[in-house]
Amino acid sequence: MDAWLATLTTPTPQEGFELAIKLSRMGVKYTQPDMEVLKRLRPEYANDADGLTAASHVVALNFQTVAAANDYWRGV
Amino acid sequence: MDAWLATLTTPTPQEGFELAIKLSRMGVKYTQPDMEVLKRLRPEYANDADGLTAASHVVALNFQTVAAANDYWRGV
Amino acid sequence: MDAWLATLTTPTPQEGFELAIKLSRMGVKYTQPDMEVLKRLRPEYANDADGLTAASHVVALNFQTVAAANDYWRGV
Amino acid sequence: MDAWLATLTTPTPQEGFELAIKLSRMGVKYTQPDMEVLKRLRPEYANDADGLTAASHVVALNFQTVAAANDYWRGV
Amino acid sequence: MDAWLATLTTPTPQEGFELAIKLSRMGVKYTQPDMEVLKRLRPEYANDADGLTAASHVVALNFQTVAAANDYWRGV
Amino acid sequence: MDAWLATLTTPTPQEGFELAIKLSRMGVKYTQPDMEVLKRLRPEYANDADGLTAASHVVALNFQTVAAANDYWRGV
Repeated sequence: MDAWLATLTTPTPQEGFELAIKLSRMGVKYTQPDMEVLKRLRPEYANDADGLTAASHVVALNFQTVAAANDYWRGV
Repeated sequence: MDAWLATLTTPTPQEGFELAIKLSRMGVKYTQPDMEVLKRLRPEYANDADGLTAASHVVALNFQTVAAANDYWRGV
Repeated sequence: MDAWLATLTTPTPQEGFELAIKLSRMGVKYTQPDMEVLKRLRPEYANDADGLTAASHVVALNFQTVAAANDYWRGV
Repeated sequence: MDAWLATLTTPTPQEGFELAIKLSRMGVKYTQPDMEVLKRLRPEYANDADGLTAASHVVALNFQTVAAANDYWRGV
Repeated sequence: MDAWLATLTTPTPQEGFELAIKLSRMGVKYTQPDMEVLKRLRPEYANDADGLTAASHVVALNFQTVAAANDYWRGV
Repeated sequence: MDAWLATLTTPTPQEGFELAIKLSRMGVKYTQPDMEVLKRLRPEYANDADGLTAASHVVALNFQTVAAANDYWRGV
């Protein structure tokens, strides 16, 4: 896979949250690299309450990691 | 997306808990930005025991992050 | 919402565990504030093995937060 | 509820693991205090692969807390 | 139960991962001590994609604990 | 099992994420070592939205461990 993750450091918490979203998507993409399959599956969870909560769950875990890496942006 | 997360610092634990709820909702919104879809899905989990527990689960994870960022409000 | 969370500090681990239960319930209540709905849903998970395990799961996460906030009551 | 959790400190990791099991069960018991219901539900998850994995999942979370409280029994 | 967990310290990360697997299995065994039932249930999750992911999930949590206990084997 | 995990240290966050993926797969493989079964089950979750989210979930947990082990690659 091409380079996609050079650092866990972000200038702001919001960019950290958006990095957490990227990490969550990459966790999916490493398991299923075929973009056509991913596009086909998208409506399955993006229009399903349980699927959206599960997605937000993974983002929360990755945000824990990114926030710790940035010492919670305490100095911002 | 517009700016929505400037800091993880909150004056009190309760405001921290409410920020955790916001983070949980934003995790959903980044996956499904269409407000109409979100409104339509809301009754699906807000009236379902499993859906509500799953929502509280994500809030608990985000509250871990916010609480650590605030050093657990020990000095409050 | 009225003030309900002034501190994460508790005198004993047991009171910390009980605060974790409160946090878990508040995670639900912020999502579904209608007490009538919550009462109606209660038997759905309180009489279901999976629902009870899921409830205990959320309590475990919130107890991690409360225990860390109290430095694990090491000095008690 | 009677006193049941005086400390998170245990002499050995195994006793810490057993405390994690107790915490997991108490998370259930606070939600459903009726012992008759709990006994009736027991076979539902104790004879079900998913139910047993979910139980072990909650124990793992509580063991994280107890292990941290004991500084991982590094001095034992 | 007989003594089975004397320490969380392991010489290498791989042995730490294998201890995490043991902890995950013991979480199951404390809930269902009957080895005959456990053997009968094994094919249910060992041949099911969701069951295997759930097992790996619990191992990941226990590995977090064991890795922290060993200070991530940084000195190895 | 042969040696497969000598260290949790990786030069970059991306290699750390890829190690988290390996850890997640090994958690499966210890439970089901038969490669034929694993190959047969793969389409079950790799073509299923819930299965992919669950896989990404386990990766997120293992990435928390690897990132902490590398002190979040702060010096990179």
